Amino acid sequence: MSTTSRAVGLAALIAAGTWLAQPASAQNAAPVTQGPLTIERQGSFFVGGRTLRSDTLSTLPAYAPNGSITVDQMYVRYQVPPNAAEKPSLVLVHGCCLTGKTWETTPDGRMGWDEYFVRRGYPTYVVDQAWRGRSAAHPTTINAVKTGRSGPDTLPTVFAAGQEDAWAIFRFGRRHPETFPGLLFPLEAQDEFWKQMVPDWNFSVPSPNPTVTGLSELSRRLGRTVLVSHSQSGIYPFQTAAMSREGIAGIVSIEPGACPAANGDMKPYEGLPILVLWGDFVEESTRWAPRLRACREFARAANAAGGKVEIAVLPEMGIPGNSHMLMQDRNSLEIANWLAGWVAKNVEGGR
Amino acid sequence: MSTTSRAVGLAALIAAGTWLAQPASAQNAAPVTQGPLTIERQGSFFVGGRTLRSDTLSTLPAYAPNGSITVDQMYVRYQVPPNAAEKPSLVLVHGCCLTGKTWETTPDGRMGWDEYFVRRGYPTYVVDQAWRGRSAAHPTTINAVKTGRSGPDTLPTVFAAGQEDAWAIFRFGRRHPETFPGLLFPLEAQDEFWKQMVPDWNFSVPSPNPTVTGLSELSRRLGRTVLVSHSQSGIYPFQTAAMSREGIAGIVSIEPGACPAANGDMKPYEGLPILVLWGDFVEESTRWAPRLRACREFARAANAAGGKVEIAVLPEMGIPGNSHMLMQDRNSLEIANWLAGWVAKNVEGGR
Repeated sequence: MSTTSRAVGLAALIAAGTWLAQPASAQNAAPVTQGPLTIERQGSFFVGGRTLRSDTLSTLPAYAPNGSITVDQMYVRYQVPPNAAEKPSLVLVHGCCLTGKTWETTPDGRMGWDEYFVRRGYPTYVVDQAWRGRSAAHPTTINAVKTGRSGPDTLPTVFAAGQEDAWAIFRFGRRHPETFPGLLFPLEAQDEFWKQMVPDWNFSVPSPNPTVTGLSELSRRLGRTVLVSHSQSGIYPFQTAAMSREGIAGIVSIEPGACPAANGDMKPYEGLPILVLWGDFVEESTRWAPRLRACREFARAANAAGGKVEIAVLPEMGIPGNSHMLMQDRNSLEIANWLAGWVAKNVEGGR
Repeated sequence: MSTTSRAVGLAALIAAGTWLAQPASAQNAAPVTQGPLTIERQGSFFVGGRTLRSDTLSTLPAYAPNGSITVDQMYVRYQVPPNAAEKPSLVLVHGCCLTGKTWETTPDGRMGWDEYFVRRGYPTYVVDQAWRGRSAAHPTTINAVKTGRSGPDTLPTVFAAGQEDAWAIFRFGRRHPETFPGLLFPLEAQDEFWKQMVPDWNFSVPSPNPTVTGLSELSRRLGRTVLVSHSQSGIYPFQTAAMSREGIAGIVSIEPGACPAANGDMKPYEGLPILVLWGDFVEESTRWAPRLRACREFARAANAAGGKVEIAVLPEMGIPGNSHMLMQDRNSLEIANWLAGWVAKNVEGGR
């Protein structure tokens, strides 16, 4: 099935009234978001990590400069609902300059996808990318420069995305402070959103990216998981599958910074249910429009080689107004509801 | 009541068999740790934060160097059990070189205090200190040096505690790799524990420490909370109370790096239930022994001025073997159970 006909298939679904345009209650979305939540078990742990020795751990007298630290590990927090044995798990991976907070309570205080999917019966795992959030960054090169042992050019690349810059990247508008008409991001809560942003060490991490090797280890441990990635991490599930398909039951890549190259090896994706999901205003963005085009090319190439890649662009399906941060937009739970349907049909149904 | 007679009081309690030496089931500790968990609501949000402009946000062409970022905010994740209206909330604050992960699943995979207290009926809030974990650090000074606009001496102070150094600080033994006899920390899972450690920016944060102002805002929002701190953060609840008593119903300071000075103003602590809790092997540590002594002096001064400060040293109460990371030691839930009893008696009972 071509990408185009799949999109048409979705449009038909919408036209038939089985999808987002419907009131949430008709889709059994609302009931699960209300009332107390019962979970079978929850917790957190790390995957990956390597231990190294350094003599620039500290410049403080109270802490020795010499010693061992562990870096490259990836923090994982999870909740498992009762009777989840028949369900695949979902792993939610955030994007640039953000942490696992992306998937939690929205800036305007609504339920995050992390809880929604648990309520829909899926064991749900939220990670902090390696070197970000609760996954340790590697600070010894800073202290090497501070103590004069290395030059400033050896400092790590660690950047903060400015809010004005991020405004356009997240497609709140073409440029700050303009907004796209009908935008569904809760801009009245933007102060809370900006607080989610953290420094990004992604250009300093070793190769292969420890988040990808961490996702591979996590997939093996979980056994049957759908890797859900976003933006900067959009490509990671594909890279993980190229490393090993073990434990990967599907991929949902939301507005990926990149899809795999259309002229690359398609073997890793053969027969694997893959959804690449996009919001609105993509064509208005010189950053994102070429990326969507490249993802369409990838989908054509993959599907020609036995792939099961769908490209879903929300406005093409009659859902306008979504930003790049669609898991936090006003209709975030309707999108999650549809996503759960996609997983049920393509991953669970395809067992 | 003097500190000494309070300690004796606890000893009497132990002797009467109402405390840790009892099997957990006799204390209703075990039942709450088993079976599915029902929560009324959960989520995450930030408190505090200030927005600043910088022209060294980035050294990458893809991200503008100029723009606004928000820093100093504090990440808070919470779970509220059903029917919690009568209970005070608990805020769990981690220590040096760690994040809120401290209170979650232990390195050897047992239930963390974050869940245990929810199961005991307490709304429980876990934070990442400002500039740590999911609370953004402030990276612009790194880029100022990397681009030659400032000298290396202006680099932030960011240190990593080496594992060998941390071994003694956390009192696994007098020095690495020796262990104290009867140590209750699950050293067989130490690899997982070392992964919890992150770089610490604490010596770079502005004054007053944004974690403290964040705790003050959080206490006001919660209305009736017990601030539970550990190690580096041990002093923070005291500093928060000195800022404003609003919303603070009690303080539990676990092995604080410092107690308030005994010759300082005791007014902020008047009538406030305060527990300072210590593990074992303190006298074996030149780092910790003077801190415990100083806390005893503070307790005497505070109690002479109308305070309600208790110093509880676990081995003095017949409980040997606890490390500095007692919330992760093998008997962590028994200690949590006793702590819940302390809160019930001193905070809830004292309403």
